[in-house]
Amino acid sequence: MPNMLNVHLVPHTHDDVGWLKTVDQYYYGDRNDIQHAGVQYILDSVVDQLLKNPDRRFIYVETAFFFRWWKQQSDGMRQTVKQLVNEGRLEFVNGGWCMSDEATTHYSAVIDQMTMGLRFLNETFGPCGRPRVAWHIDPFGHAREHASMFAQMGYDGFFFGRLDYQDRDRRRTDKDQELLWRASDSLTPPMADLFTGILPNGYNPPDGFCWDQSCDDPPIRDDPDLEDYNVDDVVNRFLMIASGQSLVYKTNHIIMTMGSDFQYENANLWYKNLDKLIHYVNARQANGSKVNVLYSTPSCYLQELHRANLTWSLKTDDFFPYADNAHNFWTGYFTSRPALKRYERLSNSYLQTCNQLEVLGGPFSGSGPFGHDDSWTMRRAMAVAQHHDAVSGTEKQHVANDYARRLADGWQHCQVVVSNSLAALSGSSAKRIYCDNLNISVCPLTESSHKFSVNVYNPLARPVTWPVRLPVNGTAYTVLDANGKPVDSQVVPVSGATRQVRKNRGSAANELLFQVQAPPLGFSTYSVSLQRRGPPPASTRPRTPPAIQNKFLRATFDPDTGLLSSLSNLETKQTIRLTQNFYWYNASDGNSSVSNQPSGAYIFRPNSSTPFVISRTAKTESLQTSVVQEVRQWFSPWVSQVVRLYADSRALELEWTVGPLPVDDDLGKEVITRLDTSIDSSGIFYTDSNGREVLQRKKDFRPTWDLEQTEPIAGNYYPINSRAYIKDDVNQLTVVTDRSQGGGSIQNGSLEIMLHRRLLYDDVRGVGEPLNETSDVFPEGLVARGRLLLTLDRPQSAADTHRPLAQEVVLQPLLTFTSGDLHPNTRLEFSGLQDALPPAVHLLTLSQWGEDSVLLRLEHQYQSGESKQHTQPVTVNLQKLFSTLEVLGASELNLSANQWKEEMTRFDWKIRAGEKPRPRRPADPSVWEVTLKPMEIRTFMLRVRLR
Amino acid sequence: MPNMLNVHLVPHTHDDVGWLKTVDQYYYGDRNDIQHAGVQYILDSVVDQLLKNPDRRFIYVETAFFFRWWKQQSDGMRQTVKQLVNEGRLEFVNGGWCMSDEATTHYSAVIDQMTMGLRFLNETFGPCGRPRVAWHIDPFGHAREHASMFAQMGYDGFFFGRLDYQDRDRRRTDKDQELLWRASDSLTPPMADLFTGILPNGYNPPDGFCWDQSCDDPPIRDDPDLEDYNVDDVVNRFLMIASGQSLVYKTNHIIMTMGSDFQYENANLWYKNLDKLIHYVNARQANGSKVNVLYSTPSCYLQELHRANLTWSLKTDDFFPYADNAHNFWTGYFTSRPALKRYERLSNSYLQTCNQLEVLGGPFSGSGPFGHDDSWTMRRAMAVAQHHDAVSGTEKQHVANDYARRLADGWQHCQVVVSNSLAALSGSSAKRIYCDNLNISVCPLTESSHKFSVNVYNPLARPVTWPVRLPVNGTAYTVLDANGKPVDSQVVPVSGATRQVRKNRGSAANELLFQVQAPPLGFSTYSVSLQRRGPPPASTRPRTPPAIQNKFLRATFDPDTGLLSSLSNLETKQTIRLTQNFYWYNASDGNSSVSNQPSGAYIFRPNSSTPFVISRTAKTESLQTSVVQEVRQWFSPWVSQVVRLYADSRALELEWTVGPLPVDDDLGKEVITRLDTSIDSSGIFYTDSNGREVLQRKKDFRPTWDLEQTEPIAGNYYPINSRAYIKDDVNQLTVVTDRSQGGGSIQNGSLEIMLHRRLLYDDVRGVGEPLNETSDVFPEGLVARGRLLLTLDRPQSAADTHRPLAQEVVLQPLLTFTSGDLHPNTRLEFSGLQDALPPAVHLLTLSQWGEDSVLLRLEHQYQSGESKQHTQPVTVNLQKLFSTLEVLGASELNLSANQWKEEMTRFDWKIRAGEKPRPRRPADPSVWEVTLKPMEIRTFMLRVRLR
Repeated sequence: MPNMLNVHLVPHTHDDVGWLKTVDQYYYGDRNDIQHAGVQYILDSVVDQLLKNPDRRFIYVETAFFFRWWKQQSDGMRQTVKQLVNEGRLEFVNGGWCMSDEATTHYSAVIDQMTMGLRFLNETFGPCGRPRVAWHIDPFGHAREHASMFAQMGYDGFFFGRLDYQDRDRRRTDKDQELLWRASDSLTPPMADLFTGILPNGYNPPDGFCWDQSCDDPPIRDDPDLEDYNVDDVVNRFLMIASGQSLVYKTNHIIMTMGSDFQYENANLWYKNLDKLIHYVNARQANGSKVNVLYSTPSCYLQELHRANLTWSLKTDDFFPYADNAHNFWTGYFTSRPALKRYERLSNSYLQTCNQLEVLGGPFSGSGPFGHDDSWTMRRAMAVAQHHDAVSGTEKQHVANDYARRLADGWQHCQVVVSNSLAALSGSSAKRIYCDNLNISVCPLTESSHKFSVNVYNPLARPVTWPVRLPVNGTAYTVLDANGKPVDSQVVPVSGATRQVRKNRGSAANELLFQVQAPPLGFSTYSVSLQRRGPPPASTRPRTPPAIQNKFLRATFDPDTGLLSSLSNLETKQTIRLTQNFYWYNASDGNSSVSNQPSGAYIFRPNSSTPFVISRTAKTESLQTSVVQEVRQWFSPWVSQVVRLYADSRALELEWTVGPLPVDDDLGKEVITRLDTSIDSSGIFYTDSNGREVLQRKKDFRPTWDLEQTEPIAGNYYPINSRAYIKDDVNQLTVVTDRSQGGGSIQNGSLEIMLHRRLLYDDVRGVGEPLNETSDVFPEGLVARGRLLLTLDRPQSAADTHRPLAQEVVLQPLLTFTSGDLHPNTRLEFSGLQDALPPAVHLLTLSQWGEDSVLLRLEHQYQSGESKQHTQPVTVNLQKLFSTLEVLGASELNLSANQWKEEMTRFDWKIRAGEKPRPRRPADPSVWEVTLKPMEIRTFMLRVRLR
Repeated sequence: MPNMLNVHLVPHTHDDVGWLKTVDQYYYGDRNDIQHAGVQYILDSVVDQLLKNPDRRFIYVETAFFFRWWKQQSDGMRQTVKQLVNEGRLEFVNGGWCMSDEATTHYSAVIDQMTMGLRFLNETFGPCGRPRVAWHIDPFGHAREHASMFAQMGYDGFFFGRLDYQDRDRRRTDKDQELLWRASDSLTPPMADLFTGILPNGYNPPDGFCWDQSCDDPPIRDDPDLEDYNVDDVVNRFLMIASGQSLVYKTNHIIMTMGSDFQYENANLWYKNLDKLIHYVNARQANGSKVNVLYSTPSCYLQELHRANLTWSLKTDDFFPYADNAHNFWTGYFTSRPALKRYERLSNSYLQTCNQLEVLGGPFSGSGPFGHDDSWTMRRAMAVAQHHDAVSGTEKQHVANDYARRLADGWQHCQVVVSNSLAALSGSSAKRIYCDNLNISVCPLTESSHKFSVNVYNPLARPVTWPVRLPVNGTAYTVLDANGKPVDSQVVPVSGATRQVRKNRGSAANELLFQVQAPPLGFSTYSVSLQRRGPPPASTRPRTPPAIQNKFLRATFDPDTGLLSSLSNLETKQTIRLTQNFYWYNASDGNSSVSNQPSGAYIFRPNSSTPFVISRTAKTESLQTSVVQEVRQWFSPWVSQVVRLYADSRALELEWTVGPLPVDDDLGKEVITRLDTSIDSSGIFYTDSNGREVLQRKKDFRPTWDLEQTEPIAGNYYPINSRAYIKDDVNQLTVVTDRSQGGGSIQNGSLEIMLHRRLLYDDVRGVGEPLNETSDVFPEGLVARGRLLLTLDRPQSAADTHRPLAQEVVLQPLLTFTSGDLHPNTRLEFSGLQDALPPAVHLLTLSQWGEDSVLLRLEHQYQSGESKQHTQPVTVNLQKLFSTLEVLGASELNLSANQWKEEMTRFDWKIRAGEKPRPRRPADPSVWEVTLKPMEIRTFMLRVRLR
């Protein structure tokens, strides 16, 4: 109502797709001793209650749960729910499979999970089921790339609940809690513009108005014959809260989230009292009250904001890091559970490979010599792993185990698809062996076989070379490529660190190393034979070499300390001082006069800003062969590293092994590695957002408010999804990571990355467990191993190296093995593409959609301005893409593939008065030729048939 | 099914009408911080869920809650519920306003509350709403009188959950958990026969099968696509439990109570899983399983037991005391909250008076010079006070306060009715003053007035004489009766004990004493004038008199100790040695190697079997006047007593004042008075059951099993509702109490009664508070005052005294006051009866029913054999009953007035093979003349009009 303060009550439930319980425990309401929560009952109850009063509204968010429920409903119930959706009484918001984490997820997995959830809604409910609003009420900080994706998915607006407390205070004062987020430096506005609203109470109801069964607020007692009639009190309290809230928002519409975690299991409690609240508050209008309360939804509220036709402030940075108070920075989860974070990233690579081969192998993939199967299990496992308490590492241990188990299970299913598909493409049904433990040099086949072949499948749309390391027990092997040509190979001893980590899970003495090449979206097959009388393997020398070097890079070492001392790019002839070492922060145990906040799964709070060095010197061994050069550094029983340079690599690899972190001193430890350089970085460093665009980070600074820095370390940490760099005018040192990690640049020229954490106290944000990972294999504490890839370049060309390098880490080749000789008719090499795509173009998605349709996403992988070579628009011809698939038709979709691009209309928002309409995007050259501008992702539904 | 084990699943909720929260807090779901419970939502939810599957069943018990809910339902919902009731899907069981306590309630209040609840069901739902089964699943021991009442209310059977653990063990072994209870020694079988079943798990579901939101048992997870499919496990566990249970019951039908305290707030959880359980368990029948599960109700289960046509064992004693383990006797609540127990008993007297005057005053009662009102508030207050956590004293303090407040509020409403009615009957609209604090000598009117009148209304159907004590400040008064004749009066000083108790609530120096007489169901008016020059009041003498004595009794005192030393009946010329003193048991604090059970609101557990004497000697004062003789005994600052003998009384009054019990020694105290006599009682004593029939109690003995006595004191305590006695061949000492109390006879010739308790520990039965009563007036601890009335008689005639005496205590005269002179036309005397009823007949109920109908209950108040004079059948003519009401019609009802007596049919149960049908009751002499046999209560609906 125009002359009223309109209060939009939004009944909602926040259903974590796993946290204290597993996703299925939450669905069924099992293990209520851990947390009372049962989503099946929530949906049962809400539908019942919506039917009782047509004014009532509800929003539902997590399709992972809705899907489970829908499966079990009768036709009658399904019709009922469709009607509720059609009438807008039940509205889906967000609608992805889960509400993804924003700090530790990779954009490709987020797009996949959103697509999966939204597809289900689209196919089940049609356009009325398409969410108009993105809803990330719980994630612990907000990534700009998420906003960009949401904009491209067609959402009209975005609401969230958590942001830095200083930021919130400033925004409340300035009535700046609703704003326009311009979420890309590259994409032409309004392509990545997203209207963003900050909810008033996180996602909870105002104090005193929680009527869920999990709350104790007084119900409305409106029978005057009974004790404690309280209608007047409730109405007065509500009016006071509404009027207070209206002071910190711009329009005469305000929103209240009436719900919280797993609420509405008994929706009657909420709705019965909300019905009364609305009735009695609006009844006051007869006495002149100017407050109008209504059941509403975020999209309805958003519509009113849009109708207000105001101008909104523009935001171009992001909402990291998130602090809920002065000593409570949620920057620990950037690194929490490093092993799960890596396994999730690796699983994404598996899934993309599985998806691609499901398409390329045609119907044989799903039904072939290795059985019937599909990628569905793996897709779901990856989708739930994107949840903001999954890959974030903020779940209970048993739940983390469940996520990992689901991924492993998904991969089992995908192996059937991959085996079938490779059989179809190669013409050989020989059994394929998968070795998932190559990172610890375990593979029973290669360890024992005299003759085997290795199929290397490359999921990238350009050819790659890739170093292969296989555990073996022989001392010399012959390796032939697909053309029967010998390949240079070396046998080197398994490192002591690897032996220590693998325990009794394998017994290979050596590793066979060789470089493989694989065609775009295709495979190449190498055969390996034991050469009985080969020379003894290259042995390590117990000393620090002055340097290791290939044609691109040279890294020097300090002979006294065994540490790196410099890095040079031999092509560009640039050199920086570079020392690198390992340290640990002593995690706060909460016993402090400043704050009782301990470090935990969410929160990083070092006890002191000065980390302890693990060892000033490293014991070293070195190894120099034609394939690889290594310096193996040993810092302590729980920290070691291999500094490695492959013959053809433009990146220096630091393979770190950290753990088990000792805690017998009762001190929680957060281990970092720090790179100290001569680069004059001026307190600035750069991190990527969800693996895509890069944001500048400045020490003790926030772009949108005057920061009072209260945590000199934790308050300067940011999520690193795939890369971080420091630079000055001439040098840029880029670190590409193999998983999400947290990091910061605390000193000039320095970059630190947190690798592993082991904590002894819960950080009181709900998870109720200290982050103290152990496992059956590692009862003494989990060991994590990973790789940092370092490149040194001129700033203006650094992206030319780190963009493809990071893609190779994200989508790594899949090795499959076959024992003995291959059948002579076996096809040893295959590419699914007619040609490699241009260097700027990344094939983001290729997956089966319907029987004769596939989903394709092409991405321009460079930001505007970051490369001289690659930041031009590129055009790709869809009909000339595939070698074995004929493209019969192509229609463009929004990013989440739930709407035709041409039908996508979004609200327009003003950032200044009198703005002019923006020019339309220029048309593609032709219907088949599509042009990608920097950072664009274009999504197509292709109708295809096998050639 | 005949060849199956049939498992009757009975979905139910147990909704305490106040316990940890007040009845209205429970209804609304307020104060869920104390206990999560909201009955409005339970009923909402159950109705919804019953509609989803016609197989589902539910039983509802407490009409206090159902009434609150029904009031707020729409017509549509009411129709829906009626349909569910008509179809047997929603079944009422028990159906009283509450589930009454059995140990501490008086039969008249129980009958009233049952009548109120059942009337509501009858009028709302007709015959389908009439409960067939009594259901006392929670009360802490079971009274025989309750069983008798239930039989006379027409119930086919009775189920309960709690009984002594030794009793249960024996019954399980002997398959004797279902039996026929013959609940009266006087009534002709099967009038008081009640089939009684002991439920298998208290009233809870079997272990692992609680699917309420308040439970954590695993739900049935039957989607094979999700984790942890558990159908097989659930079915196997259920079959094992069912087969175990079938071993301890007689038939191939067993019952399982699927519910518990305040469960089914979200009934979907229960029903969804029960639907699945039934489906999957019965699906096993296809594989040969012989177990059939079904939704059922207690009446349906009972019908199957009846159909089994077996013979059942006969029980004639009761189920007191209740112990749930060796050191856990629930005998403390017999005395817990003595002040509340007295106030409840007094309120019953008020309510009966209010009911009677509402009838006798006709339409004027509800609408007269003092306003519009009725007895409804008081009826409801009394009804909820019968709940097994109300008058029992086992509720939280704030809830006890709420019960008291409701009674006080009820009495406020009744005062309007009483004033109106007395105005109509007396012809005077003069304002009537009520003095509710005469027990502590507080009444502002009498304290200050020079002239006032006292109207004495007698609710008994026979004339009474009654000693009146009024607080005054004068020293001499003239008292005239209704005929203007002077009445002997005395002014005596207020005792020190009374001054101490009343604190600053009054300032009377003296008490004016005189004996009043009041006609049956009527009043007499006395006028009192200050006699300015009267003599000084009778003064007390600081010494122990050798004896006090009237024409009936003589009590002697030991001059050394100040204690009673003997009691004589001067008519029968019998004398016993009688010493009486006060002691306290040290309440167990739970710190004991034997058991960690503390004494608490429920449980009595003295730390030692030897109580501490409070003082071996009493300081005494004495007072001897023509109206009364008193010995005032002072034992300690917290125990005093007045031994009192009125001129016309056959009972020696012991007015005890106990409290505040000191606890600064950190010892909980349970204060008793003990009467030690020369009676040779052989370990036997007698207590009444709910104020009616008397049961024999034998030390360390139970009639139905070999008792292993583990608590020599607490295990010998029994509830005393209105009287207890010890006797030998020649002497019977009877003690009539003014409230329910616990007591025992631990030594030969001895009788102890617990008066007051103050405890420092919770007894871990849920109430969560120590029984440590304080109040605004008594922050240092509650003081309780009460009276024990002692009579000494020959055993064969003792009832002739104690029956009428106890009735006078239960239904005591109501005094109302008028200031100044009465209008000359005022009618000073009135009786509602044409004549006093015969001495054996008690007018139990006279209350308005409809506009021209009243409910009448007449009761034969003697047991067969207990009196030579009075145990003959007595006939009363209903048409000649009332003086001002013409009885136009009379129809007999069952005891609870929800069924015509002639339509009342109950199941017949066999206690031995080949029993013959019992002879029919002989007919009444005529339609108006009704005959009462010993202990019979007959209930009539009378059509009346004012003469």
